[in-house]
Amino acid sequence: MTEQKLIKPRKLSGFMELAPNKQLVFDDMVAKIRAAYQQSGFLPLDTPVLELSEILLAKSGGSIDKEVYAFKKGDTDICMRYDLTVPLARYVAMNCEQLSFPFKRYQIGKVYRGERAQKGRFREFVQCDADIVGLGELPIVADAECLYLVNKVFKALNIEIINRISNRNILFGFCEALGYAAQTSDILVVLDKIGKIGKENAISELRELGVSEGDCDKLIGITLTAGEFDSTLEKIQAYTDNELYQKGISELREVGQYLKALGVDQKGYTLDIGIIRGQNYYTGTVFEAIIPSHPEFGTVCGGGRYDNLAGYYTDKKLPGVGLSIGLTRLFDLLDQNGMLPEHKPTNIQLQILPLGDTLTECLELQAYFLNSVVTEVNYENRSFKAKLKEANKKEIPFVLVVGEDEVKSKKYSLKNMATGENSQLSREDCLKNILSSLGN
Amino acid sequence: MTEQKLIKPRKLSGFMELAPNKQLVFDDMVAKIRAAYQQSGFLPLDTPVLELSEILLAKSGGSIDKEVYAFKKGDTDICMRYDLTVPLARYVAMNCEQLSFPFKRYQIGKVYRGERAQKGRFREFVQCDADIVGLGELPIVADAECLYLVNKVFKALNIEIINRISNRNILFGFCEALGYAAQTSDILVVLDKIGKIGKENAISELRELGVSEGDCDKLIGITLTAGEFDSTLEKIQAYTDNELYQKGISELREVGQYLKALGVDQKGYTLDIGIIRGQNYYTGTVFEAIIPSHPEFGTVCGGGRYDNLAGYYTDKKLPGVGLSIGLTRLFDLLDQNGMLPEHKPTNIQLQILPLGDTLTECLELQAYFLNSVVTEVNYENRSFKAKLKEANKKEIPFVLVVGEDEVKSKKYSLKNMATGENSQLSREDCLKNILSSLGN
Repeated sequence: MTEQKLIKPRKLSGFMELAPNKQLVFDDMVAKIRAAYQQSGFLPLDTPVLELSEILLAKSGGSIDKEVYAFKKGDTDICMRYDLTVPLARYVAMNCEQLSFPFKRYQIGKVYRGERAQKGRFREFVQCDADIVGLGELPIVADAECLYLVNKVFKALNIEIINRISNRNILFGFCEALGYAAQTSDILVVLDKIGKIGKENAISELRELGVSEGDCDKLIGITLTAGEFDSTLEKIQAYTDNELYQKGISELREVGQYLKALGVDQKGYTLDIGIIRGQNYYTGTVFEAIIPSHPEFGTVCGGGRYDNLAGYYTDKKLPGVGLSIGLTRLFDLLDQNGMLPEHKPTNIQLQILPLGDTLTECLELQAYFLNSVVTEVNYENRSFKAKLKEANKKEIPFVLVVGEDEVKSKKYSLKNMATGENSQLSREDCLKNILSSLGN
Repeated sequence: MTEQKLIKPRKLSGFMELAPNKQLVFDDMVAKIRAAYQQSGFLPLDTPVLELSEILLAKSGGSIDKEVYAFKKGDTDICMRYDLTVPLARYVAMNCEQLSFPFKRYQIGKVYRGERAQKGRFREFVQCDADIVGLGELPIVADAECLYLVNKVFKALNIEIINRISNRNILFGFCEALGYAAQTSDILVVLDKIGKIGKENAISELRELGVSEGDCDKLIGITLTAGEFDSTLEKIQAYTDNELYQKGISELREVGQYLKALGVDQKGYTLDIGIIRGQNYYTGTVFEAIIPSHPEFGTVCGGGRYDNLAGYYTDKKLPGVGLSIGLTRLFDLLDQNGMLPEHKPTNIQLQILPLGDTLTECLELQAYFLNSVVTEVNYENRSFKAKLKEANKKEIPFVLVVGEDEVKSKKYSLKNMATGENSQLSREDCLKNILSSLGN
């Protein structure tokens, strides 16, 4: 080995890799999201990271977006999944006969997008999705169930959010009412980016699409309509009697009524017609949650209603509604802004320090304490002083010193590292002392 | 969409995909393993699934094993990880200065091997690794710590195992003592497969390596030595005074002493000189756990001691010891043999059935019950009878019927699906009834 040239250890850029004590915090967030999903009656699904290209690229007719990691293995064209929705569609289409509907599943897993690496963008990231899929039909109450879940998840994460809700039928119908039914898609693309490009640019782009000056104002006006849910909905309800528009209004009204019944705090959501969510597959309710204290974080959770989940794979109509949290990005933002819960250098609660030839006895003690607290024996070949200093640096709350005298007397020297207090106690009393101090 | 030709939904072969209620059981096993690792003071690491080929293929000098999923993205040669050890080596070499040693990390994650698909072999599988890495040196007690952890994990999983332990120095030294030091590697390859190819074939392969007939008997004899740890160790300790051999004996003796101190049940492990563990990087303690009631499952957990984790990436000497559980394969075996814990079709504990126009009230009740039990409202557009039948089929333990009379009286009709008992109760009493019946 020594003759070999060393390879510089490095990882691919754009891939998050946390220090273990931070990973502990990340995993804790995953556990909370998982619990919230599961307690709400969603069951876990874990589809493979790899899918047949034919399946994953159905939407684009097989052409590979440059973001997608695609490769050949033998004769098989393979892609790494870039979201959890297409695999869900494939799964439901494949297992339609066995599933009972509405099918409520969550999936927490890594997805891959080989986009240009930039700050806050990751090529591998953990997505936390929950969806409700119906067979043939799915009542609007399912939309409220998802919105309720968004609320529940962020409450579990102890993060205050505001969920901005709209219904795409409102803008669909509004465009139709103004006589632009054929250009609706293009118009929505422009309206979706008003925030980014500004009102003036939006107007000139709309004008290019053939929208009259007066209609530009109307379109931008309704898009920028946002505020308290019920009163804003009331304000806009009579703008047009277009059927689609009124469908949007009435679906939102129903959603609002259910959210109230579910006890969702009305300060936690608004009506915001500007929420469009690019993807064409949304067909009704859409929502995006932001953190009001940090609007610059952008959307931390989004989702909506779609008419047909798996139209590429099956004739069965599978309407659904879902939500998605990009956890890797959210975690990174919280971390950058000092908003993560406390993370100590270690999870060790008790470290046992052998003094002299007492390792065997230390292990006996370790086995005893491990039933209740996270315990390790520091068997390093270093000075006692160095070990104590290290334990302090690692913020280990308790250290137990076990010398030959302690072994004989069965009274061990327990040091509370926060208070500096030293006590000579039996192992039972040591444990009591530790547990009461740790608040267990 | 309807004009489009449908794509048959299918997944790649050799990839496990569980039904959600089974996934629940799988996730529960992961949670137990995670908890056992964490409570023993190991911290989580989550390295990317993708690594630079240069890093991942360092061992083979850059040549790609046909098992490895490798591809190019732009100018970058990328591989999917095929184990969690090489990424650990890269991580430790990269972050040496920041880590404190011994570094105890666990990683539970998917790894990829594009081998020929066959029953019980998966191309994507979850590996659950825990390792202790020292800087410069790592005392033998760390080996015992890993063996203790194996025991702890399987106890948490409620699976009885026997851990078969050896030390590679014993066979290294034995070969050396017989005068075959130069052929040790080749000899170990043969000895490692006695179980597969049989004694006769092993002898003829050894003879081809130039081993004398008498030495063949000796080598096979010691390799087949297995039994109760202490007495078997005593039996073989004086076979030769070769230094390596005696190092192996004394390391094992130390391990045995520590396992006793840690309270590991002596019925849970044996000494078995036939445990070799192919990979050349093991240099001391090696072990493989089997399930004694199902020896045909083969090794369900294995690991051992290595001298130098990251020799390809750093000059620093990083000895370590670790264990690895191939969870996907283990789960599949348990499943095939009816050994999984019970998995019900759903985790729903209470289903609320609206009768008439009571959906809003049902949602209020759902929000109330969700604080304590997994509750859903069945808002499907189906007959009451069909819904009740479905709830029964799904083994949902409680159903709450909410008609207009119930809304008025605030007494709801709670049906215990197991006993068939019906009660008219306030929501508070419903909850008490449910919780006491679920044993919470």
